[in-house]
Amino acid sequence: MILAIDVGGTKMAAALVAPDGAVRLTRRLATPQDADAETLWKTLLALIEPYDGFSGVGVGCGGPMAWPSGEVSPLNIPGWRGFPLGERLAARFPGKPVRIHNDAICLAVAEHWKGHGRGRANMLGMVVSTGVGGGLILGDRLVNGGTGNAGHIGHVIVEPGGPPCGCGGHGCLEAVARGPALVAWAQDQGWTPSPANGAYRDAVGSDPEKAGSGREKAGSGQEEAAGSGLDVAGAYREDREATGQMLAADARRGDPIARAALARAGHALGLAIASATHLCDLDVVTIGGGLSQSGELLFGPLERTLREHARMDFARRLSVVPALLGQEAGLVGAAALLLGGDRYWAV
Amino acid sequence: MILAIDVGGTKMAAALVAPDGAVRLTRRLATPQDADAETLWKTLLALIEPYDGFSGVGVGCGGPMAWPSGEVSPLNIPGWRGFPLGERLAARFPGKPVRIHNDAICLAVAEHWKGHGRGRANMLGMVVSTGVGGGLILGDRLVNGGTGNAGHIGHVIVEPGGPPCGCGGHGCLEAVARGPALVAWAQDQGWTPSPANGAYRDAVGSDPEKAGSGREKAGSGQEEAAGSGLDVAGAYREDREATGQMLAADARRGDPIARAALARAGHALGLAIASATHLCDLDVVTIGGGLSQSGELLFGPLERTLREHARMDFARRLSVVPALLGQEAGLVGAAALLLGGDRYWAV
Repeated sequence: MILAIDVGGTKMAAALVAPDGAVRLTRRLATPQDADAETLWKTLLALIEPYDGFSGVGVGCGGPMAWPSGEVSPLNIPGWRGFPLGERLAARFPGKPVRIHNDAICLAVAEHWKGHGRGRANMLGMVVSTGVGGGLILGDRLVNGGTGNAGHIGHVIVEPGGPPCGCGGHGCLEAVARGPALVAWAQDQGWTPSPANGAYRDAVGSDPEKAGSGREKAGSGQEEAAGSGLDVAGAYREDREATGQMLAADARRGDPIARAALARAGHALGLAIASATHLCDLDVVTIGGGLSQSGELLFGPLERTLREHARMDFARRLSVVPALLGQEAGLVGAAALLLGGDRYWAV
Repeated sequence: MILAIDVGGTKMAAALVAPDGAVRLTRRLATPQDADAETLWKTLLALIEPYDGFSGVGVGCGGPMAWPSGEVSPLNIPGWRGFPLGERLAARFPGKPVRIHNDAICLAVAEHWKGHGRGRANMLGMVVSTGVGGGLILGDRLVNGGTGNAGHIGHVIVEPGGPPCGCGGHGCLEAVARGPALVAWAQDQGWTPSPANGAYRDAVGSDPEKAGSGREKAGSGQEEAAGSGLDVAGAYREDREATGQMLAADARRGDPIARAALARAGHALGLAIASATHLCDLDVVTIGGGLSQSGELLFGPLERTLREHARMDFARRLSVVPALLGQEAGLVGAAALLLGGDRYWAV
């Protein structure tokens, strides 16, 4: 049994994960906003305090981080800058192994271990949400790269001269296809959320952070299908009037601008995936995150662009599928860092 | 001692390679043009006939091929389509291991084993010539991908909507940066080779294939610094009036269009390398092939584009350098398939 922890900007989650991947006794707490480092640490201690009977600790945490030490500086947890999370957990659980990796890596690992990547040796696991992240498995092993940062598919360049990206560059996949970028693009084209989205807005209420946590605890959690790591629960809420959820819903209702926005994301994803499979000769790509629920509206344009560019035999064989695992993927992947033997952890 | 063989569309080369990488008794023959499969095979047998005292056979051959079986269909050797080169060599040398890989892979492996990638665990070895190819080493091991085709950096997309590529797609790095594409682009801009290139044309004479082989035997071979695999000896000669050699020479002489052509290549390379390091978290990229001899005229624009796009810490640490090894790189890499232990061969 492994204690799995998933640390995101909106919430922290923990559970016990069995060797077969079964997740038990999941607990969640809202991540204190604007809290200092020790307050955040105490919240995490309170979250994991009830657990016992585990042999190791696996953690997925928002990046960036120093890997493999697990000194974390999550972009969306300002109170932790260079916080020695790995060291603290090792001191808290002496004698037990502690393994920490990027949350997007954990999602990919989970999908490889127990999802649609199972049995496929060469996989890119992606998540498209507030950000666009991923993890790369080649030769049946997680690729870390020189500093644990391999898998940053969100920063493959799909539009040279394109929009500025949070990374400091421009034209990255993430700059084009992240939820907030799509919302902004649609709004520029004249889209406003249809009245049918009203119910959603009422449900969120005046404080989306808290309302989000409430929904998570109630377990409905449809908004966070890809796990917590990339703040899926908070995804698309940078502009609280118009969200990626609404955009996707309006696309399903037939709104032409909303559909064009999803097609724009699909096109950008298709370009990045074509480049990735040419470089890595992949078997399968899985896509999780809220946008991956959009079905043909996203995957149709994605496939068209991919097939237009990936013409060599070895690239044509690639399949691109929605991720199988739901909201517990982050916990499953964190546990797999230990339960997967050395497939997902090599330092 | 390993018998190393390098099969290209212009010539075939063989040598004995010692465990320390030393190359001995190199022999070369012109690849018979428009020959049938058995004529080509007999040429190869004649090439390797004198060798003995080796324990295994390593081969680099133009792609595509079925890997790891070594059933080859080199694009520039029309007489071999689905030719069972691996099987034939195994039958010729019973009891000895035979390992065949793509020529671009062998160049990358050579550079990792004995060149500028030595001691770096995460490397992309590139060659920019008539084509743009590469090989990927991650975690100190060659990445094969699902079908042995990982490393196709030439088909990372750098210009969506850009020029058609030989692969059937468009906007690929190779479509923009391969020697013949640069020459065609420069000619479209009004460039013609300066009279100073006359001496080169005289040296090539009326039959560039033969003249090329002659120069190789004489060992001057500056044109083929990256090895034979990608037909570097024949590189830039599709149009025998204007070649990439001349373009590079005119750029060194200050011709503004020729310089712009090299800058165009550097820009495209910078984009593809930025995408590659974001995906794979690389330590070093080596670039071989004729164009890599252009120094700052190529590497300056490459670096500017790379640094503009690769802004995250893990990407900023990447270094991009010209390949160290010269014309024997293909033979060194072919031998390394066996001499590198399991680092470069895992099936």
